Amino acid sequence: MSAAKKTTARKKSSKAPGKPKRSTAAPRPKRRARRPPGNVTGKLTNLGDQAVQQIHGGKNPSMQIPLRTLSNVTFDPKRSIIELGDQRQTRALFNVGQARKFMQTLLVASACKELVDAGKTTSIRDLYYITKHTIPGTKQNTFEEQEESDPIIEDLEVTIDALREEMHLFASNRGSMVGDLTLVDTGDTIDLRRLGSGGWSVPSIVEANVVQFKRCDAKMILLVEKDAVWRRLNEDKFWKKHKAILLHGNGMAPRGVRRLCHRMVNELKLPMYVLVDNDPWGFYIYSVVKQGSINLAYESQRMAVPQARFVGLSSFDAEKYGLPSNVSIMLDDADQRRAKQMMAYPWFERKGWQREMTKMLKEGVKLELEALSSRGISFISEEYLPRKIREKDFLI
Amino acid sequence: MSAAKKTTARKKSSKAPGKPKRSTAAPRPKRRARRPPGNVTGKLTNLGDQAVQQIHGGKNPSMQIPLRTLSNVTFDPKRSIIELGDQRQTRALFNVGQARKFMQTLLVASACKELVDAGKTTSIRDLYYITKHTIPGTKQNTFEEQEESDPIIEDLEVTIDALREEMHLFASNRGSMVGDLTLVDTGDTIDLRRLGSGGWSVPSIVEANVVQFKRCDAKMILLVEKDAVWRRLNEDKFWKKHKAILLHGNGMAPRGVRRLCHRMVNELKLPMYVLVDNDPWGFYIYSVVKQGSINLAYESQRMAVPQARFVGLSSFDAEKYGLPSNVSIMLDDADQRRAKQMMAYPWFERKGWQREMTKMLKEGVKLELEALSSRGISFISEEYLPRKIREKDFLI
Repeated sequence: MSAAKKTTARKKSSKAPGKPKRSTAAPRPKRRARRPPGNVTGKLTNLGDQAVQQIHGGKNPSMQIPLRTLSNVTFDPKRSIIELGDQRQTRALFNVGQARKFMQTLLVASACKELVDAGKTTSIRDLYYITKHTIPGTKQNTFEEQEESDPIIEDLEVTIDALREEMHLFASNRGSMVGDLTLVDTGDTIDLRRLGSGGWSVPSIVEANVVQFKRCDAKMILLVEKDAVWRRLNEDKFWKKHKAILLHGNGMAPRGVRRLCHRMVNELKLPMYVLVDNDPWGFYIYSVVKQGSINLAYESQRMAVPQARFVGLSSFDAEKYGLPSNVSIMLDDADQRRAKQMMAYPWFERKGWQREMTKMLKEGVKLELEALSSRGISFISEEYLPRKIREKDFLI
Repeated sequence: MSAAKKTTARKKSSKAPGKPKRSTAAPRPKRRARRPPGNVTGKLTNLGDQAVQQIHGGKNPSMQIPLRTLSNVTFDPKRSIIELGDQRQTRALFNVGQARKFMQTLLVASACKELVDAGKTTSIRDLYYITKHTIPGTKQNTFEEQEESDPIIEDLEVTIDALREEMHLFASNRGSMVGDLTLVDTGDTIDLRRLGSGGWSVPSIVEANVVQFKRCDAKMILLVEKDAVWRRLNEDKFWKKHKAILLHGNGMAPRGVRRLCHRMVNELKLPMYVLVDNDPWGFYIYSVVKQGSINLAYESQRMAVPQARFVGLSSFDAEKYGLPSNVSIMLDDADQRRAKQMMAYPWFERKGWQREMTKMLKEGVKLELEALSSRGISFISEEYLPRKIREKDFLI
């Protein structure tokens, strides 16, 4: 097996998030009120100003950090997103257990302010290297590992109520896009109808100051889990025939892809469909796109797409679409555990999803999107998807 | 940690290829003569015709498969590529140990011919599903796992002397590209100077019938290991100031990126520079781009870029560019073993590389590209790379 192939293998997360409270359980934590949007530089400056004022006032410099824990997460079934509650903790300078993190938070905030002021962006790994140094007169480093700086970024996001992308920090840019849309990316007009087989590589930062939408003739958005399926649909010009915007996230949709979908659904008023493998991991990808994740609940309001619909693969599709039984794969123990765990999540409480996962567990098998190719290489673009959408055969 | 982040973590291959023979050792296997290029459909048809003729002649149907083993690999220091020798093995139908593979080889060949005839492409995973079925009247499946069909594809590539891409099979399309070049991708003209922050997503199949080069004003090609560094260089418009074509492969360069570099270097006559982390894995990425890998030696003539030059990170750069010591990372045991193993490869025999790796082992540290940011966020694009190229400070 070549090294190249090794890195393209599908990455499954074995680390399942902890079981959240069911919506019917104990009183739900109060949903955090979203503060009015504001200038990010201003918010970062405020954080520093506040510390300075506390020092001048003879007080212990401190800040209030919203808690990013399971007990402070809530699921709103009506709005269909996972959100952070309003519990907070204090982080102070004169506190042995908090001093280091206090220093780190201000250090990261200061570096982000410099980035925003300079109009430059960088990766979270880069930020770690930028802020890492030995504190003069000591042998202490500001950070030892990136594992120390990443949570500080998350703390900062939630404290000043800004996405990392607004603080000019990016994740990786996985994912490609084509479709019946023209957009502007940092001043370049890009016609997504004319990008050949490769498509536009979706950047990690897709805020309105970077990406603006121009002519849109699309009637829907289709997000697929897999790059190979995206290529099939692009080659068959599915997006042209069905007036669609076609994206993939190469596995779990990265932040850039999720944020862009959020913006397109809300600004272009398009319906959105999600096509993933028929296995617990595929369902999980769908659920993160739709309502956000527990770990990053604070970003749901900007990233989640509650309007998203699951078009497949459903556990009922093998029968409905006449797939041969030898393309099914046996569920392993981890799959079974994960499916049962997910059935208890409030966001999978709806009858359709319970039926879906009960069927999967009963049959004891999962299916990859490629299994549709056993019915013909273009079966997915010429029969499966058109019928699914025509018959409105999807879950919400 | 979010699920999205988990999948973007850098994947290091723990599986190092076996130690090859040093060029000074036992007689080198004879290099396989490359057969004249020909029509892929013709080659695939020949394979079937040959079996039919053997059957009509009352012979045991068989084919000759070049050996893809270490003993049949050779390194040509002059041409600087790893190549396959001319040892072959017979694969016959009436042989208990070979019958299944014989059947599978013709099955895959037949499916590829259908793909080429239909003008469609697909992934190697998809091919597995397309060719998998239960043999009528038995309980035997043609394939049980994709692990069975992938090596058959490699056998077929080397038997008929065609890349999988020519048989319309693709790997994933990782990697993005911008630069001073206009190209055509499946009929769409794409100006790589105007693709914003995202860039063109490099497809897996970049053969001349898919991708053609048009106006090129670039003076060099720069391939970087990391997506984040690519973004930094793109944001700083490095490619514009230095008239470059800028690509990344998101880790180990995938086949599409390697093949495209090969074509650009040979057809556009451009020098090519490779920028990777200062660690054994980074050096390995460089060596695969430059001379190919042991496992896939048969593709070297179409993929390898012997002209490629290593611009960094060198183990001498920390001193030369005044990087603080706290951005270095200690080599772990696996790094040390891998470095020593690589020092014994014929393609790292040159004095410069021996000096390079001896220095790395002596210092006991490695460096990531992001470490350059400790000198300033645009240090890499404004100082490091321009000086490296101006001073011709690179290894070959």
